[in-house]
Amino acid sequence: MQAWRFEGGFGFESLRRVELPDPVPGPRDVLLSMRAASLNYRDLVVLRGQHGRRVQPPLIPLSDGVGAVAAVGAEVTELKPGDRVCPAFFQNWEADAPPADLEAGRLGGPLDGVLATACVFPETGVVRVPDHLSDAEAATLPCAGLTAWSALMAAPQVQPGETVLILGTGGVALMAVQLARAAGARVIVTTSSPGRAARVAALGADHVIDRSATPDWAAEMQRLCPGGVDRVLELGGAATLPDAIRVARTGGQIILIGNVTGNEARLFLPAVLVRQLTLRAVTVGHRQGLAALARALDAHRIHPVVGDTFAFEDAPQAFRALEAQGGFGNICIRVTG
Amino acid sequence: MQAWRFEGGFGFESLRRVELPDPVPGPRDVLLSMRAASLNYRDLVVLRGQHGRRVQPPLIPLSDGVGAVAAVGAEVTELKPGDRVCPAFFQNWEADAPPADLEAGRLGGPLDGVLATACVFPETGVVRVPDHLSDAEAATLPCAGLTAWSALMAAPQVQPGETVLILGTGGVALMAVQLARAAGARVIVTTSSPGRAARVAALGADHVIDRSATPDWAAEMQRLCPGGVDRVLELGGAATLPDAIRVARTGGQIILIGNVTGNEARLFLPAVLVRQLTLRAVTVGHRQGLAALARALDAHRIHPVVGDTFAFEDAPQAFRALEAQGGFGNICIRVTG
Amino acid sequence: MQAWRFEGGFGFESLRRVELPDPVPGPRDVLLSMRAASLNYRDLVVLRGQHGRRVQPPLIPLSDGVGAVAAVGAEVTELKPGDRVCPAFFQNWEADAPPADLEAGRLGGPLDGVLATACVFPETGVVRVPDHLSDAEAATLPCAGLTAWSALMAAPQVQPGETVLILGTGGVALMAVQLARAAGARVIVTTSSPGRAARVAALGADHVIDRSATPDWAAEMQRLCPGGVDRVLELGGAATLPDAIRVARTGGQIILIGNVTGNEARLFLPAVLVRQLTLRAVTVGHRQGLAALARALDAHRIHPVVGDTFAFEDAPQAFRALEAQGGFGNICIRVTG
Amino acid sequence: MQAWRFEGGFGFESLRRVELPDPVPGPRDVLLSMRAASLNYRDLVVLRGQHGRRVQPPLIPLSDGVGAVAAVGAEVTELKPGDRVCPAFFQNWEADAPPADLEAGRLGGPLDGVLATACVFPETGVVRVPDHLSDAEAATLPCAGLTAWSALMAAPQVQPGETVLILGTGGVALMAVQLARAAGARVIVTTSSPGRAARVAALGADHVIDRSATPDWAAEMQRLCPGGVDRVLELGGAATLPDAIRVARTGGQIILIGNVTGNEARLFLPAVLVRQLTLRAVTVGHRQGLAALARALDAHRIHPVVGDTFAFEDAPQAFRALEAQGGFGNICIRVTG
Repeated sequence: MQAWRFEGGFGFESLRRVELPDPVPGPRDVLLSMRAASLNYRDLVVLRGQHGRRVQPPLIPLSDGVGAVAAVGAEVTELKPGDRVCPAFFQNWEADAPPADLEAGRLGGPLDGVLATACVFPETGVVRVPDHLSDAEAATLPCAGLTAWSALMAAPQVQPGETVLILGTGGVALMAVQLARAAGARVIVTTSSPGRAARVAALGADHVIDRSATPDWAAEMQRLCPGGVDRVLELGGAATLPDAIRVARTGGQIILIGNVTGNEARLFLPAVLVRQLTLRAVTVGHRQGLAALARALDAHRIHPVVGDTFAFEDAPQAFRALEAQGGFGNICIRVTG
Repeated sequence: MQAWRFEGGFGFESLRRVELPDPVPGPRDVLLSMRAASLNYRDLVVLRGQHGRRVQPPLIPLSDGVGAVAAVGAEVTELKPGDRVCPAFFQNWEADAPPADLEAGRLGGPLDGVLATACVFPETGVVRVPDHLSDAEAATLPCAGLTAWSALMAAPQVQPGETVLILGTGGVALMAVQLARAAGARVIVTTSSPGRAARVAALGADHVIDRSATPDWAAEMQRLCPGGVDRVLELGGAATLPDAIRVARTGGQIILIGNVTGNEARLFLPAVLVRQLTLRAVTVGHRQGLAALARALDAHRIHPVVGDTFAFEDAPQAFRALEAQGGFGNICIRVTG
Repeated sequence: MQAWRFEGGFGFESLRRVELPDPVPGPRDVLLSMRAASLNYRDLVVLRGQHGRRVQPPLIPLSDGVGAVAAVGAEVTELKPGDRVCPAFFQNWEADAPPADLEAGRLGGPLDGVLATACVFPETGVVRVPDHLSDAEAATLPCAGLTAWSALMAAPQVQPGETVLILGTGGVALMAVQLARAAGARVIVTTSSPGRAARVAALGADHVIDRSATPDWAAEMQRLCPGGVDRVLELGGAATLPDAIRVARTGGQIILIGNVTGNEARLFLPAVLVRQLTLRAVTVGHRQGLAALARALDAHRIHPVVGDTFAFEDAPQAFRALEAQGGFGNICIRVTG
Repeated sequence: MQAWRFEGGFGFESLRRVELPDPVPGPRDVLLSMRAASLNYRDLVVLRGQHGRRVQPPLIPLSDGVGAVAAVGAEVTELKPGDRVCPAFFQNWEADAPPADLEAGRLGGPLDGVLATACVFPETGVVRVPDHLSDAEAATLPCAGLTAWSALMAAPQVQPGETVLILGTGGVALMAVQLARAAGARVIVTTSSPGRAARVAALGADHVIDRSATPDWAAEMQRLCPGGVDRVLELGGAATLPDAIRVARTGGQIILIGNVTGNEARLFLPAVLVRQLTLRAVTVGHRQGLAALARALDAHRIHPVVGDTFAFEDAPQAFRALEAQGGFGNICIRVTG
């Protein structure tokens, strides 16, 4: 099989295209012929060699992808050749409480990822994807899609009529806009550019705050939603958390997802205590969540937003595009076709 | 004030139009100038004198209505004259666990109901209603509307992409169709007539099973939804429960709401045990639920379905229409205007 | 290896002691040297050939057992030789929602059970057991123990100070007494004999109703607990369900577990509706629940009650003892030692 | 009636003993003859005039107390003279979601508190207390007791066998030790002195870390509990939060309660994200929680720890004792007797 692999180190210079022996499925495994992959911010952290000691070369990168079942082990009962499936981001998290060593089961580091023409996974490590999705769209489900789903479903699950504030317009944010609308919520999004504002509105956001025109977005939120918002999807990090706390309603929930603006946040405790906020970290999610996401996308015929797409041989350019952060939608790689 | 009241007994012959002294609000109360009322099946049970020993004449009937605040007590802080509000069906259930003697707080028996030109309630016993609703539409919220909402929100709350089966096309069922759609569910409805089937489909149901054409609706359900449905709104009773159990998925939920087809149901335990079903009785709901319902209707600009509407002086005809069961939508009474 | 197996049919006459090839663990499997097994009512149903079409000979019986890890596959990371583990009753249910075809993963039919000297399971299909338990005690965890745990933890989980009523004194009931006490609940138990009453009281029950002396136990319950009980563990079936409903509080929960007194229950809907009861079927439980149970037993140094114990070569006598229903505690079989 | 009241300002100099007209209960109110009161840290903040603009003199201080019903209004149904009750800390929070303006309903500021010989509350604003409690013990329930209860019951509720870490040995902490034990948890407590360590151990803590002997308590925790603790009761604030995060398990919960060591906490986002922690602020709790607490204390015959107790006429000395922070247990004031 063909794969891209970090060899001898990280960085662009160590990302090599290699020919590897075809993987062989065990009795409870499926062999996938990969069709597409998708990139997430975390893949850049891996590329930069900043993901900690457990993520070491040689390593096939990328957690998100979709493939067609090419062969099944003798004890496989639920899947058959031709089924199109995504592997779960965490191969060791089926449902409910995460295992103590969750990190051990992560694709794209420490486990080999999906940027290859063939992969093997346990039958219980994959989920069927809806037919209406293109390969590139389906490839975005395991991380970006599931993170958005988990953020909205985290107890207490979003209710019809509630207001959800989504900070930003990255891959998770765009999927969250679509899913929050499907769940009946009112959706407000902040973005840094007028161009993105128009596209997010077209995706279904009820209100978009363009931070280039309205730098004090929190004040604008308080005007729009004087009682405070029910749920904030905190995709920013250190720079945005204080304002996220400021705009949440009494008893509201702040879903901590990202830290792109910095790791060291300031937490003003009286604000959190007086309004009885819950700050809940969501890291992707479990396999049953991925299956529920697939069902919801199917029922609503939702298409995840795909941005720039690259051929398998141009995989390094996909990382460059991710670094540049200029696009709109998930950056994808076609593996076959 | 004017009111209709059961005097000396129940039945049409005891339902009298009376002139009563105007009620006076206490310091934490509001005085409502009533605008409209709505009838539910339970009001017929009261009319027939079949509601048990605690419901006794003299009694002003009907639990569901809407009024405008005409005056407020000295300690009222959240409401002001002109606000349009619905009283909560249970005046003694604010949230979470119902009180031990829930029945004591029910409007329309044992407590006086809303079929009057003026009513007094504690400030904490009413909820503001959305502006886009007509008076008749708003009057349907306390019982029919809230029952539908509670049935969908009962833990685990319905998720986008789940399938909800609604048995019937009465007032609760129609509201449930609209709310389940707003919550992102796939909605299947059974009905007994082709005419209603078309109207329910127009309301947003994804699929309608006309029992006049398809008597074995459960077999049809198994064809439509081979894995079983996630949630059944069991509005039938003894005659429909066995089939409701038959079509639910493993781990599914059957919300017990009605018993119009009979009180004595047969429960085949192995079917319930093997598929780990939950049968959960929902009886209207609490005041916080009513407020959440109002918010959801507002966000989605949902209009409850209003059927035949009668003038205040023709109130007995509204009970006759309810008995006849011929219409579509909630039967309402205009109190003012 | 040695095993007992139904061959050519069910019934005592078909239960044969056989010599079989030693099972070989795959890369993610563990090989167990079995130490003890435990019998449940369901094993009798299997013996009688009444478990439905999917349970067919040849079949090694019994779902509940404990063994020591003898060898591990190359990819096993969490377990090592010498660890003492129980297999999960359902090999295909890790947590949260049960899979659609839950029955397919059940040990002791349709899957081979544990009445053998050696067994192979996936690493993710077993759970470590506490050191303070004897082998016979540990063998009772997968079905009797976990059923009791699931019944108490089913949302909303039992709270300290709540009252739990447990109908009967079988294996599940005895474990439920101990666990409900550990969770801080007040525990009331019904039993049919004075002898068992004394033993259940010694186990920690706050109150025991001896039905031989107090045939109308429901009336006695209403006297003891006038507001109704929070949770009933309904281990009876058709004959006891109506009284279980009668003694539950408004908003209370009835956990449906058994049907030994009959399959066809009568459900009086108004009683369920007026008091907003939830009837929830619990069937054993999932693997994460088994792990949580093990942790709770460890923390509280709880010893499950073991009744008559038989040697491996006398396995049929264990089934005879189960049929006779005369003992107190779980009937066990020593496999080794 | 007699009362202590801040008049014209805050501080000891403004705390005056005054004679006021007896309060008169309205139709749904109860008149209480107060028996005892209890002090919390927040009462010091009020004394110091640091509680914000809404808390203004004249103000009767203290939120926590117990009284005997002396008279009931005409519409009161659940209470009768002689019943011993505590008022709820928040008079406007019955259950579930807190109201938007929760602060408006707080006793001891902005609402008048309980440091008086007589008080009037709505029937729905009080809770009956268990008979086995002394007046001083009962007086500690509304704030210290309920905060501990809410912290343990916050979803997902503590389970038998889980480990709870409690930071400190103030009034909330001591009650939490007793309640966590009653709920079946393993309890670890940190304290700053050997004397308190012994007393906390006597109260039932499984393990006590004396920070005077073990300054790096977080390292000690990691040794005691290598997988991390399930729940941390974070009673410290800015100085302890980073270590609380360090010792929590993957998926664990940190209950934010206090900020005595400072308001401005540092939050290292990667630690929270990687381990999927939930930081949940708990502020006392609602009236249904107070009733559940009373029931749990009753079932387990738990006695809250009462420290120094003062006579009504010596009320200012109770505030001085609270400032000195030298004692063990809740500081109380006898109002009658």
